[in-house]
Amino acid sequence: MAENNFIYLDNAGTTQMRQEVVQGMMEFLTENYANPSSVYKSAGRAKQAIDEARGKVAAAIGSRANEIYFTGSGSESINWAVKAIAEGHAGKHIITTAVEHHASLYTCQALEKAGYDVTYLGVDDRAMVTAQQVKDAIRPDTVLVSIMMANNEVGTIMPIAEIGKVIAEANASRENKIFFFTDAVQAVGHIPVDVNELGVDLLAMSGHKVYGPKGVGALYIRRGVKLNPLIHGGGQERGRRGGTENVAGIVGMGIACELAIAEMDEKAKKHAELRDYLIKEILEQIPHSRLNGHPSQRLPGNVNITFEFIEGEGMLLLLNAQNIGASSGSACTSGSLEPSHVLMATGLPHEMAHGSLRLTFGRETEKADLDKLLEVLPGIVGRLRQISPLWEEFQRVGNIDAFTAK
Amino acid sequence: MAENNFIYLDNAGTTQMRQEVVQGMMEFLTENYANPSSVYKSAGRAKQAIDEARGKVAAAIGSRANEIYFTGSGSESINWAVKAIAEGHAGKHIITTAVEHHASLYTCQALEKAGYDVTYLGVDDRAMVTAQQVKDAIRPDTVLVSIMMANNEVGTIMPIAEIGKVIAEANASRENKIFFFTDAVQAVGHIPVDVNELGVDLLAMSGHKVYGPKGVGALYIRRGVKLNPLIHGGGQERGRRGGTENVAGIVGMGIACELAIAEMDEKAKKHAELRDYLIKEILEQIPHSRLNGHPSQRLPGNVNITFEFIEGEGMLLLLNAQNIGASSGSACTSGSLEPSHVLMATGLPHEMAHGSLRLTFGRETEKADLDKLLEVLPGIVGRLRQISPLWEEFQRVGNIDAFTAK
Repeated sequence: MAENNFIYLDNAGTTQMRQEVVQGMMEFLTENYANPSSVYKSAGRAKQAIDEARGKVAAAIGSRANEIYFTGSGSESINWAVKAIAEGHAGKHIITTAVEHHASLYTCQALEKAGYDVTYLGVDDRAMVTAQQVKDAIRPDTVLVSIMMANNEVGTIMPIAEIGKVIAEANASRENKIFFFTDAVQAVGHIPVDVNELGVDLLAMSGHKVYGPKGVGALYIRRGVKLNPLIHGGGQERGRRGGTENVAGIVGMGIACELAIAEMDEKAKKHAELRDYLIKEILEQIPHSRLNGHPSQRLPGNVNITFEFIEGEGMLLLLNAQNIGASSGSACTSGSLEPSHVLMATGLPHEMAHGSLRLTFGRETEKADLDKLLEVLPGIVGRLRQISPLWEEFQRVGNIDAFTAK
Repeated sequence: MAENNFIYLDNAGTTQMRQEVVQGMMEFLTENYANPSSVYKSAGRAKQAIDEARGKVAAAIGSRANEIYFTGSGSESINWAVKAIAEGHAGKHIITTAVEHHASLYTCQALEKAGYDVTYLGVDDRAMVTAQQVKDAIRPDTVLVSIMMANNEVGTIMPIAEIGKVIAEANASRENKIFFFTDAVQAVGHIPVDVNELGVDLLAMSGHKVYGPKGVGALYIRRGVKLNPLIHGGGQERGRRGGTENVAGIVGMGIACELAIAEMDEKAKKHAELRDYLIKEILEQIPHSRLNGHPSQRLPGNVNITFEFIEGEGMLLLLNAQNIGASSGSACTSGSLEPSHVLMATGLPHEMAHGSLRLTFGRETEKADLDKLLEVLPGIVGRLRQISPLWEEFQRVGNIDAFTAK
């Protein structure tokens, strides 16, 4: 980051592009500026580079290259999948969860306004949904199940493969196919993802969450699945997504995926150790703190803690003053005054849903960074509690139940 | 381009990024990788850079900064405007022209399938539509007029300001407002564009057509115009367009727009002179050639010529062998076997709509480049005619009418 000695613990918000990615992109930011749809030689080279990137992204999720379609962001991929499946196929019922990313939730809400019926499955206190819940929610008019692979706020990893089996079983004995989409923006490059093991028809990815560029994403569309464009236009992406290809961005995403997969196992192991260390230390050192999300079925690099009686915003500002970058909830809603819809769905009361801190690790994160954080965090929490009317009230009443009732 | 001594005459397809643009982007491709929605200091700097770019793009079209919304491409901007106006407002009738870009045409066709009624205004033999045609087509249920500012294939500049007046007059005496959208992807930075003089409610732009990056565009939305998102998500772009901002791309587009506007008058004058020179020489030197598009109301850097009896594809390949990059029709459809829908709309028969060559100038284009082209073009056309069955037939019959009848 531009600041010196900055400890960046917001890698679920975005990641720093790797040098290899920037280097790979430079050719297409400078000398080769061809429109890949043209016929001259450099255009052929640009087209070839896109095809190579397509192969690399496909390899990251176990798909064929020609099942990958590049988009402008993970959010576009999510909007496209949810909207086009619903609108292009028979059935007016959608099953999703209450803890999806807003790109998915708001698309479902827009479809509700257009006459669709959406079931928002609740989650347990670890933000987990079960395959049984999906099974029970399936109706004759269900057209889409849209469930994220890993939650962007609390890191809970959903049982996508189990859900895939439930849907496959249901599809075996019905005429109108149920399509299965997963938002894997937080998963690809961080935990193993294989579209065939998961049994998904569509899967969304983003470049900048895996040390690639912002402004590029991809959608996996299983061969044979009919999907109208969200963005009509020229014949790009085999007629499915209009707009001149962001060649540099696509090339960058390909390199980023390839490297992320190569290093994934080692990084995941290291992150999980760091994660468990940090969770243990925080919970031990700071009273009235609790872990959000699942303790083990969670992204290796995600820690999300609620500190009772205080607000996340104040923590972020004081941490920032100590050169530590973190987030409360998702980056997208960091500026918002709304409490996290994910934490609310896990049963946290409104006040506590405001007081969470998300710490997400990256390639550079080391134990020393976490120790630096642990040096300052108890003091910051204590300081904020000193000025918290809720804390004052709690000290007076001495009964936690009065504050945690919904 | 990667090739040496390459004469690039396909600047309507895409342009080479300026060095100033790449340099301005580098900060956000390397050290500052912040998610602008976050709260730490570098995120504030990224947010500020986006706001600066917004101001620069706004200045290029005479709008307020807060009327500019960044997207992933010109095509996304077009899809968004057409679709969201139609779906979000009263009225089921859309007026457009037969010569729009496919991003617009195909969106209208999708809306037709969804129950909308679309009037595709015809054009004259110069690809021109009139304000009177628009006036005559307006119905009580008209919700949108979508007409491009300058045609991407033949360069004809439409009378947008006149059409804007016609629509304003109609709106003065009706309840359901008619919204006016223009696709100005080929216009901004090349000819004067002022949203207030034009009287448009929405206007689409692209970065890579004005020496900016691929993968970024913008939509001008006049203050007060309600427009639902095409891409739902986080609170980015004031809640109107989800997806983590492509900071580097947005910054690049801002710089590109600022520089394009600063140099526009001089460049346009030079290009118009080169254009008129090239048109005159081609028509004089090569028999059975004709200019497509309007002779004077046309983009300064656009030359589009039909060479009867031959196909555009062959010309492109032989020109490429001479290190000259050009296009037949739009870049998006260069690989396609379909004749140009624009040339068909101007009344050209199917065979002749196949034989067009689009030459579009850029910042580097000099008269010497055109003279090099003029050295080889007559020979290329002659050679292709020698192997053309149509030419053989024409030589035998000696009657051009048999070939030009529709």
